Amino acid sequence: MNPSTETKAANQEAFERLTKSEPVLIDVAPAGDVVPGMTENTVLTSGPPLPWEAYEGGQRDAVIGGALFEGLAKTAEEAAEGFASGRLKVDGCHDYGCIGSLAGIYTASMPVFVVHNETYGNVGYCNMYEGKSPKRLNYGVYDEDVREQLTFIAERVAPTIGAATRALGGIPLKPIMTRALHMGDELHSRNTAASLLFSRELIPAFLELDDTPRDHVRDTLEILTEDHYFFLRLSMAAAKATADAAHGIEHSSIVTAMCFSCAEFGIRVSGLGDDWIRGPHASVQAKLFDGHTEDEIAWMGGESPITETIGLGGFAQAAAFPLQAYQGGDPQAMVDRNVELYSITHGENPDYHIPFLKYRGTPTGIDVFKVADTGVLPMMDIGIAGKGGGQIGAGTVRAPMECFQAAVAKFAKT
Amino acid sequence: MNPSTETKAANQEAFERLTKSEPVLIDVAPAGDVVPGMTENTVLTSGPPLPWEAYEGGQRDAVIGGALFEGLAKTAEEAAEGFASGRLKVDGCHDYGCIGSLAGIYTASMPVFVVHNETYGNVGYCNMYEGKSPKRLNYGVYDEDVREQLTFIAERVAPTIGAATRALGGIPLKPIMTRALHMGDELHSRNTAASLLFSRELIPAFLELDDTPRDHVRDTLEILTEDHYFFLRLSMAAAKATADAAHGIEHSSIVTAMCFSCAEFGIRVSGLGDDWIRGPHASVQAKLFDGHTEDEIAWMGGESPITETIGLGGFAQAAAFPLQAYQGGDPQAMVDRNVELYSITHGENPDYHIPFLKYRGTPTGIDVFKVADTGVLPMMDIGIAGKGGGQIGAGTVRAPMECFQAAVAKFAKT
Repeated sequence: MNPSTETKAANQEAFERLTKSEPVLIDVAPAGDVVPGMTENTVLTSGPPLPWEAYEGGQRDAVIGGALFEGLAKTAEEAAEGFASGRLKVDGCHDYGCIGSLAGIYTASMPVFVVHNETYGNVGYCNMYEGKSPKRLNYGVYDEDVREQLTFIAERVAPTIGAATRALGGIPLKPIMTRALHMGDELHSRNTAASLLFSRELIPAFLELDDTPRDHVRDTLEILTEDHYFFLRLSMAAAKATADAAHGIEHSSIVTAMCFSCAEFGIRVSGLGDDWIRGPHASVQAKLFDGHTEDEIAWMGGESPITETIGLGGFAQAAAFPLQAYQGGDPQAMVDRNVELYSITHGENPDYHIPFLKYRGTPTGIDVFKVADTGVLPMMDIGIAGKGGGQIGAGTVRAPMECFQAAVAKFAKT
Repeated sequence: MNPSTETKAANQEAFERLTKSEPVLIDVAPAGDVVPGMTENTVLTSGPPLPWEAYEGGQRDAVIGGALFEGLAKTAEEAAEGFASGRLKVDGCHDYGCIGSLAGIYTASMPVFVVHNETYGNVGYCNMYEGKSPKRLNYGVYDEDVREQLTFIAERVAPTIGAATRALGGIPLKPIMTRALHMGDELHSRNTAASLLFSRELIPAFLELDDTPRDHVRDTLEILTEDHYFFLRLSMAAAKATADAAHGIEHSSIVTAMCFSCAEFGIRVSGLGDDWIRGPHASVQAKLFDGHTEDEIAWMGGESPITETIGLGGFAQAAAFPLQAYQGGDPQAMVDRNVELYSITHGENPDYHIPFLKYRGTPTGIDVFKVADTGVLPMMDIGIAGKGGGQIGAGTVRAPMECFQAAVAKFAKT
């Protein structure tokens, strides 16, 4: 089936919104204070929303962990009863302007990045990186160590970055992301340069923060640059603020979100409303950390493919050859896969460029018609969770064709 | 002619010294206080040393500018008379453990990075980047603006970095350089990531420097990261400390320095003593900044090819695809040229890797026999100076075959 004339025009509008968005970090604040609709008894998690009883494995553990961290229950059993009875509420991040990394747990007290789309006025939120321990709440683990780390983030890191951000009058994120693509990042599985560039922006403010203890600043610097991941949450919040601006354009067949829960994969399409088009899990090619095996791989949710939705991550992998060592793969294969993705996107990004491709703009704006026609599936760079909880590797996944075929069928009906 | 068995063994020793060196920044101090042999009336400049009257054009202007800056003369004429009469002394950087960027002017009051080779005990020095103005003393310009900028460096930037470096107990440079190669730098014409990583090392100390005014710290941060070049002087000092450790090994045909003056190109070879083997100028492929033309290109000295001597710069260009935009060139051509250089080097660097080449170690240890045999000339990334002074572009140059043939002939005689 071919897209209509209306769809072509609507897709151009969606593409412009994807590429003209200017995401700016304006604050860091507790989710309960800034996220519309967030309440004290709500826990947000990744993926198209499911009834409580459908959450299983690590994602269920993570939601329960969130309730325990927030003091909404004293035991896992009490938390589970609370969600079953409706005293506690579990819901999907996306519908709150939030975006979840892996299980993506949000509770009211957790600090979030507040990213304002200066061009279109909407806001995206993302909570903060927990640190390099493979055991993290968003990987389905909750224990005393995880609690301490979440408290450390909330009490030391978030207020320090928040104060610096306000002192600077906001930090535009697109210039950082544009430069980071020239420095080996693809802004999903690798954010090394972006984290350094973001630190660089903060430091003049850090020097002036007379009310912030120096050890808080030191701790913040440390977590900002200890590995490849800190900036991912900013890349995700920027991508959410960008993609949401392109959602809701009548007739547009451009994808505005891709994510998954423990149970299924889902996409949202600009012209097909807020409902999720659900399908089976993505197919995965992983490189596991030493000592782990494929039968340990677990799905526990993930919304970081919002980065691919705006032309980053797997859609910019030829900017990030160092990822070959982390998630497996071969530089030439990374180039070939990246180039293939131009066949399913609306256009080339005017701001995000790939040096090895002679600064060609990244393939941006996934068109469900082109995916269905070509059979080329969107490729995403992701972290791999283990059944026992924690990160056990990284790899690439392909979104399932079923979602795109279903989207095309919906257009046929209208 | 084939190298002898002794030469093969000596080259392995030279290669080990090139690759096992551990350069550590230990201090920043005025050249007159730390550089052995440096005197108040000496000006050091780049290239195999020449008699005063042989310096011409921008390099002569730069040497005179150094004398004026240091207060050794009141006018250019008085300075020229001083050098002619012997009251003032001009000499080559290399023989003082120093390494010159472009004209490479050193005077006694100028601050230098002090880089200690922890493995072999020798020290390399490099003076500091003047900032992003195309008009700089090391590009042959001396006026009130240049004087102010040199004073700014000496009074604000150097003491701040020096104090932080001492507080940290020294900063190992190889780990920074290793990481920077994974982030789009080749550590000659592009040092963007290395400058950020170096800043990141300094910042915890910056936060504690209670005796340093905050505006000095802010100014230092600004110049550290304003463009792609700050770390080059550290890369050069590290390379000098590394290459010197590999010099003086009997029978070794490994190159330990490549540099040029306004008049000629020169190389030093590990087993051929301290004399320079001189030849004609390198051949150049340049991309000029807007508004400049090829007939403006001027040779005014340069010793930054010490980076290529240890396996960086042109020998790591496939790590730095963003350079295509700056100095001209095509990503695939950069790969091909980089790979070709393995044919003239002793081995693959165990620490400096190129992600696009599946983390292959950079070609390291240029062997004059291999250059003469293959006809493949060492390739260097350099900044291009204009006849009127200042930087007018950037590009790649090839060392002249004459130097390598002359070196092989010297081995034949011994």
